[in-house]
Amino acid sequence: MRKVYLAGPEVFLPDAAAVLAQKAALAREYGFHPLTPGGPHPGADVLGAFDFGLVIGRSCEAQMNEADFVIANLTPYRGIGADTGTVFEVGFMRGQGKPLFAYTNTTRDHFARVSEDHYRGAELSRAGLLTRGPDGLLIEDHAMRDNLMIDTAIHESGGSFCAADAADPARDMTAFRAALTAARTWWAAR
Amino acid sequence: MRKVYLAGPEVFLPDAAAVLAQKAALAREYGFHPLTPGGPHPGADVLGAFDFGLVIGRSCEAQMNEADFVIANLTPYRGIGADTGTVFEVGFMRGQGKPLFAYTNTTRDHFARVSEDHYRGAELSRAGLLTRGPDGLLIEDHAMRDNLMIDTAIHESGGSFCAADAADPARDMTAFRAALTAARTWWAAR
Repeated sequence: MRKVYLAGPEVFLPDAAAVLAQKAALAREYGFHPLTPGGPHPGADVLGAFDFGLVIGRSCEAQMNEADFVIANLTPYRGIGADTGTVFEVGFMRGQGKPLFAYTNTTRDHFARVSEDHYRGAELSRAGLLTRGPDGLLIEDHAMRDNLMIDTAIHESGGSFCAADAADPARDMTAFRAALTAARTWWAAR
Repeated sequence: MRKVYLAGPEVFLPDAAAVLAQKAALAREYGFHPLTPGGPHPGADVLGAFDFGLVIGRSCEAQMNEADFVIANLTPYRGIGADTGTVFEVGFMRGQGKPLFAYTNTTRDHFARVSEDHYRGAELSRAGLLTRGPDGLLIEDHAMRDNLMIDTAIHESGGSFCAADAADPARDMTAFRAALTAARTWWAAR
């Protein structure tokens, strides 16, 4: 049975345990063995804040080293892009050459979020292929869901980046199910 | 001569070429062979937007595969955290077990940025070791500069995460020089 690392910012939710349990159950339903971040870290509460952080980080790295692939929740988190911890994990798995599957609970792409949410519809400057914000910073316009390193890595790994709009973007499982379906198909062909 | 991949959101600046050239020159001054993202991609302009993005992404991955280590600019970019493309690259290099060096042009840590910038000083709820925003989301409070996966990976790799406040956070080289110094010391001991 293939092991999937379930990366995502669910760990920060007030109902994290319930949402992670639901994702793990769904992964099993699709035939995978789930590895989830977080969980209890016995004794960590007597450590200092920094060392407590290291314990969690090491635990997540160990699970990624054990996993065959990742399904990452890249729904925008506290801003216009994916949670940085989750993005780190996508890069980590790509660095090891493992297949990447991901999902986001919005169909609004990177360019839409940067131009509409970050720049709030301010006038953009266009020169050839390049579009820039009023502060002069380039806005990636590659019909990609997030930063091009992320979309490229998923594409090159042979995986899928699924998207669906959701009333509750922090918890909806529609796009996650689509990613599970894509992963099941991918592994079945091997 | 060790090869360093110079990750960072400088590629989005209007004066990207000049800033990247300056960083490359500094890396050489410290005894490293610099590999920088971006650069010309001949023929890419006749591709569609998505395929153009893939060309850039593949080029960056090839440079990371060639590099011995990374120095990542993790200065907050368009929000409270580091540029997601750069974070992906830190994860990529960590997944390959390479040493990680990083810098940020602010000394305000992750907790300060989330609580003050994202929640704009709204009242937080505290229960034991856990602090949450008014929306219930956990705020990592580990005396770390960014998400704990990033800080942990840098620490565990034996590298350094340097910080200095700067009048021009997008271009200042003080913290970059500190990271170069740390990397030179690290490699000299090998």
